Amino acid sequence: MSKKSRQPLADELKPFIAPFRFDGSGKFHLKSHKTDARGGLDREKAQAILEANRKRLNDFQERLYAQDRWSLLLIFQGMDAAGKDSAIKSIFEGVNPQGCEVYSFKQPTSHELDHDFMWRCMIALPERGRIGIFNRSYYEECLVTRVHPEFLAKEKIPPRLVTKNIWRERFEDIAAIERYLARNGTVILKFFLNISREEQRKRFLDRLEQPSKNWKFSMGDIAERALWPRYQAVYQDIVRHTSTATAPWHVVPADHKWFARVVIGSTIVAALDRLDLHFPKVDKAERSEFKQVREALEAEGKGGGKKAAK
Amino acid sequence: MSKKSRQPLADELKPFIAPFRFDGSGKFHLKSHKTDARGGLDREKAQAILEANRKRLNDFQERLYAQDRWSLLLIFQGMDAAGKDSAIKSIFEGVNPQGCEVYSFKQPTSHELDHDFMWRCMIALPERGRIGIFNRSYYEECLVTRVHPEFLAKEKIPPRLVTKNIWRERFEDIAAIERYLARNGTVILKFFLNISREEQRKRFLDRLEQPSKNWKFSMGDIAERALWPRYQAVYQDIVRHTSTATAPWHVVPADHKWFARVVIGSTIVAALDRLDLHFPKVDKAERSEFKQVREALEAEGKGGGKKAAK
Repeated sequence: MSKKSRQPLADELKPFIAPFRFDGSGKFHLKSHKTDARGGLDREKAQAILEANRKRLNDFQERLYAQDRWSLLLIFQGMDAAGKDSAIKSIFEGVNPQGCEVYSFKQPTSHELDHDFMWRCMIALPERGRIGIFNRSYYEECLVTRVHPEFLAKEKIPPRLVTKNIWRERFEDIAAIERYLARNGTVILKFFLNISREEQRKRFLDRLEQPSKNWKFSMGDIAERALWPRYQAVYQDIVRHTSTATAPWHVVPADHKWFARVVIGSTIVAALDRLDLHFPKVDKAERSEFKQVREALEAEGKGGGKKAAK
Repeated sequence: MSKKSRQPLADELKPFIAPFRFDGSGKFHLKSHKTDARGGLDREKAQAILEANRKRLNDFQERLYAQDRWSLLLIFQGMDAAGKDSAIKSIFEGVNPQGCEVYSFKQPTSHELDHDFMWRCMIALPERGRIGIFNRSYYEECLVTRVHPEFLAKEKIPPRLVTKNIWRERFEDIAAIERYLARNGTVILKFFLNISREEQRKRFLDRLEQPSKNWKFSMGDIAERALWPRYQAVYQDIVRHTSTATAPWHVVPADHKWFARVVIGSTIVAALDRLDLHFPKVDKAERSEFKQVREALEAEGKGGGKKAAK
C-alpha cells in the first residue's frame, strides 16, 4: 500500500461518498435525498467493493492501533429497521475487537439521567488508537426527546433552564463538543440511514413473519412509525444544524442494504486514508539495540537448550 | 428561612464576592488583584461569617439533594501551598458526604492520556443534587502543560493538530463545554487562590520545619516555584479567556487563609441562594394518601404487637 503506487481512496470511492455527505455549507432538504439510490451498482459489484473495503479497514485499523494517536468515532442513527445493526455487523466483520467497541444506547437509566444528556456517551468515547461505534447516540436527545416531550421531563433539568431555545442550544453544544473532540484527535463520522416509509413497512412485516427476527420487533415500533413525518422533520433539522466540516453527516440511502454498506464502508476507509496512519517508526539507536538483542536470541538457540531449559 | 423575612444572601455577602469575581466583561490584570486583602475583617469576624456560611451550606445542600435537579461544580486552582486542600476541608466540614465528592486531579495516568484532555474530569462530574469539588481540574492542561511543553507531547495528540492556536482553542472549548454544562443544570464556580510569592516561601518553610507537614512538600515544588512569573502570566491568560457570566472566575486573596475561606464560602452560599432550592412539594392526592398510610400505621401500633410480630 505504498502511497506513490495508488490514487487516494477518496478519489476512487468519491461516487459513493460525495453525493451523500453534508458538511453544513449550502442548504439541506431531506426530501431531495433518495432512499433507494444505488450509485449505478448492482449487488455483485457492491459485494466486491464491500470486500475490498473490509480488507482496507482491517489494514488501517492495525495501523491506527499501533500508532495510538487518532481515534475514530462512528455514529449511526436511523428509524427503526433502517439497518443500523446489520450494517455494523457486515462492515466490521473480521475487525480485531481489541481495537473496536460498539455501544448501543437504549433508554437512559436513572443513573444516566442524573447527568447532562451527553455524559453517558462521553464516558464511552473511544481511546486513542481505537474505533468506537455508537449505535444511536446523544442525537436521540434531540430526536426522540423532541418528538416525545415527556422524555425531556425525565431528564430532570431545572425548569428555568428549559426554554423554547433548548433544541437550538443542544445543536450548538453538540457542534462545539464535536469540534473539541476533533481538535483532540477524534475523527467523527455520522451516518443517517435514510429509508422510505414503505421499506420500513416491508421490514416490519419480515420481522413479524420470520421467527428468527421476531425478537427485533416491539409494539412500540408501530407507535413511532405513526409519527414518521415528525421524525423526518426532526432528522432534517438535526442534519441541518449539526453538520460541520469536521463532523459531517452522511445521509445514506438505505432502502438497499448492500448499497448502504458500500457508502458507509467507503466513507470510513477514505477518512482513515487521509490520516496517514503508519506503524511507529523505529529510530537508528533502537535498530542497533534490536540487532544486538536478535543476535543474543539467535546465539542462545545455537547454544542448545541448556540456558533456555533453566 | 422564609424568603420574605430576609434580604438575599448575595446582597449581604456582596463585599466578599463582587470585588473578586470576573465574568469576562472588561479587562483583567492579575497584578491589580491584591493577595493580602481582608475585606475590612479580622480573624474573629471572619470566624463568625465562616460559621454562618457553614450552617447555610448545610441547609442548602439538603435541599439541593432532595430537589435532585441542579448540581454544583466547584473548581479550585492555585499555586502549590495556596491553601486549596485546607480551604476545602474547612468550608465543607460537616456537609453530608453522601451529597458531596472531592476529586483531586494529579498527573494524568496512561489511561487518562488515551482520551481527550477533559475526559477524566467529565466522567467525574457531579450528579444532579450533588456538589462536586475539583481540586485542580482540566485547567491544569492549559497551565502546567503550557509551562512544560513536554507534558503536551505526552497527551499523544496527532501532530498535525498541535498548532500555535492550541491554547486559544482550549480556552474556546472549555468555555463552550462549561456553557453546555450550565445549560443542563450544573452551576459552575471557579476559584483561583491567589497568593504572593513571599507567602508561598513562608508556607514551604513551614512544611519543611513541621514534621506533620513534611509529607506535603516535594522537591518538585521548588522547581515550579522558580517558574513563578510564567505561572502568573498563564493564570492571567486563563482567567481572561475562560471567564463567562455562567462560569466566572473568582480571584480569591489567599495570603490570609481565614479571608480566603470567607470569600469562597460566601460565593458558594450566595450562588445556591439564587437557585430557589426547596424540598419537593407533596401534592393534594399524595397528602391524602399519606394521611391514610399514617392512620394505618397508628392503628397497627394500637392493635398491639400481633401483626408487627409476624
